Amino acid sequence: MTKTLNRQVQLVRRPQGAPVPGDFRIVDGRVPAPSEGQMLLRNLYLSLDPYMRGRMNDSRDSYAPPYALDAPLGGGTVARVVRSRLDSFAEGDLVVTPDAGWQTFAISDGIGLRRLPNDMEQPSQALGVLGMTGFTAWWGLTAIGRPRAGETLVVSAAAGAVGSVVGQIGRLLGCRVVGIAGGADKCRQVVEEMSFDACLDYRAPDLPVRLREAAPDGIDIYFENVGGAVREAVWPFLNNDARVPLCGLVSGYNGITEGTGGIHALLMSLIVKRIRLQGFMNAEHLDCFSDFERQMRGWLDAGHLRAHETIVDGLDQAPAAFVGLFEGHNTGKLVVRLPE
Amino acid sequence: MTKTLNRQVQLVRRPQGAPVPGDFRIVDGRVPAPSEGQMLLRNLYLSLDPYMRGRMNDSRDSYAPPYALDAPLGGGTVARVVRSRLDSFAEGDLVVTPDAGWQTFAISDGIGLRRLPNDMEQPSQALGVLGMTGFTAWWGLTAIGRPRAGETLVVSAAAGAVGSVVGQIGRLLGCRVVGIAGGADKCRQVVEEMSFDACLDYRAPDLPVRLREAAPDGIDIYFENVGGAVREAVWPFLNNDARVPLCGLVSGYNGITEGTGGIHALLMSLIVKRIRLQGFMNAEHLDCFSDFERQMRGWLDAGHLRAHETIVDGLDQAPAAFVGLFEGHNTGKLVVRLPE
Repeated sequence: MTKTLNRQVQLVRRPQGAPVPGDFRIVDGRVPAPSEGQMLLRNLYLSLDPYMRGRMNDSRDSYAPPYALDAPLGGGTVARVVRSRLDSFAEGDLVVTPDAGWQTFAISDGIGLRRLPNDMEQPSQALGVLGMTGFTAWWGLTAIGRPRAGETLVVSAAAGAVGSVVGQIGRLLGCRVVGIAGGADKCRQVVEEMSFDACLDYRAPDLPVRLREAAPDGIDIYFENVGGAVREAVWPFLNNDARVPLCGLVSGYNGITEGTGGIHALLMSLIVKRIRLQGFMNAEHLDCFSDFERQMRGWLDAGHLRAHETIVDGLDQAPAAFVGLFEGHNTGKLVVRLPE
Repeated sequence: MTKTLNRQVQLVRRPQGAPVPGDFRIVDGRVPAPSEGQMLLRNLYLSLDPYMRGRMNDSRDSYAPPYALDAPLGGGTVARVVRSRLDSFAEGDLVVTPDAGWQTFAISDGIGLRRLPNDMEQPSQALGVLGMTGFTAWWGLTAIGRPRAGETLVVSAAAGAVGSVVGQIGRLLGCRVVGIAGGADKCRQVVEEMSFDACLDYRAPDLPVRLREAAPDGIDIYFENVGGAVREAVWPFLNNDARVPLCGLVSGYNGITEGTGGIHALLMSLIVKRIRLQGFMNAEHLDCFSDFERQMRGWLDAGHLRAHETIVDGLDQAPAAFVGLFEGHNTGKLVVRLPE
């Protein structure tokens, strides 16, 4: 084993726009030796994911720390324990690692590792459908999307790792599922193999027309993986009370397509910081009105809360008072009093 | 009573940009007579609200139907029943109406009305702190904002009808509350009378610097009433897992400041359609991982779900495979297999 070399893929420069093979270098080095409290892992499967592009930039514009140059890239793997100086793991154990990365061997202290059955038939699934990819699809769809049977779910990057799982789960939960993917071949695959109800090729013309046909009742959930022009096409078809789990914006990861003040930057900030942005309409929640009244009345009566009002006398004054609303003339609630 | 005239404020043309008094007309007409199943109301208080500006446009870019021209404007009121041909209401009853509008008298069939104590001391509060305004503040803050004691809440249009209530509730729930308002006078009022911890004048220079000082731990909840430059200044200070209840974007209601493809239009669509837009990060929800695994494993084992993978052999192939991720080369999960 020690005669073997540790092959690594290192990042040698930060990609400008789309990554190119020259941004990477393959290096063979010595296999590291585990200290007490560590173990040596041999990677069997490495997950490749779009979020890695963000980590190749030297900025915090991602949800994971930037990769160092001239060091192996990080990334989730399935690995076998080849030597353990840890009580909790033994040689031969199969594990999922969060970041053992683009290399043959890695040292681990066991933290963050998930154990797999040693004889697991398809260990790569622990990176995909049964791993963080599947979990991303499942959590984003169920916790944010909250699908109800009969609703319409649209999934961008439908043929991708996350999208293909989102769509299948959506179908299992009773949604009508429309995918969006690039090219007729992928779209066929999305429908035939991934059981979506329909799939639209975003490269073909008239996407809005085809969306209207494929989602005649509008869109209740849009699971967003790409952003950009696809998001723009989908947006007008969102129904009231739609939910949009923002999983990725891969159309913008390579660059330079929009400035920092644009929509891509705004949406990206929601992902990076896990922000919830939600419009609401008071009239739709009137079932809570009596709770509100009770609490508010209590605070008012106890003197904990004050009612601030600007009262204008006479209906004739209403137009000028309304104009003043936008010029900051009032404080508190603006009310016109009519003589009784 | 029938000798009295019904004074109305009518919309005579749709405002271009900011409304001006000439967009309105005052008309005196006959007091309408209630038919069987109706009643005649005399308005005592009329609520004036920024959302009305949207209804003055001839478009669906609001959450309420557009106002008709040459007809009285709609709006919530407190009213007294002056004549009733309904069993459920009697002369002298005090009610809140959702849309009896900018006029002295209105006909109602009783639908959507809320009854008030006939001798209520300050009936205008039923439009403000104890009405839809207060409810908007309370619901948006508690249901979307989900404040926790010790968190920092920033409120734009802090001196306004909704903002002044949001801030006071935030304080009662244990938040540090920072308002943003226009002018030193309003800011003083927001702190001294509305009990905010601090208030920043957005018209003064260096808002970001002052925000950093006023919210040294960052912002956990941003209750948004205005949009535009204030939102831009606040945005970088949002913490991870921040919640942004989008209540209004009054900076843009008068027009023309941003195109339909811009951020204002995007955020406005969230309000108009009550859309929830949320970024997320799988690693923060690992407490749900075993639930996920159980459900997913069940679907996989039952053959209801398929695991789609693109497997590439050899670490040397990883860079090219990664580059291909952005060119749509793979379907399903992209995994690199390393020889064991």
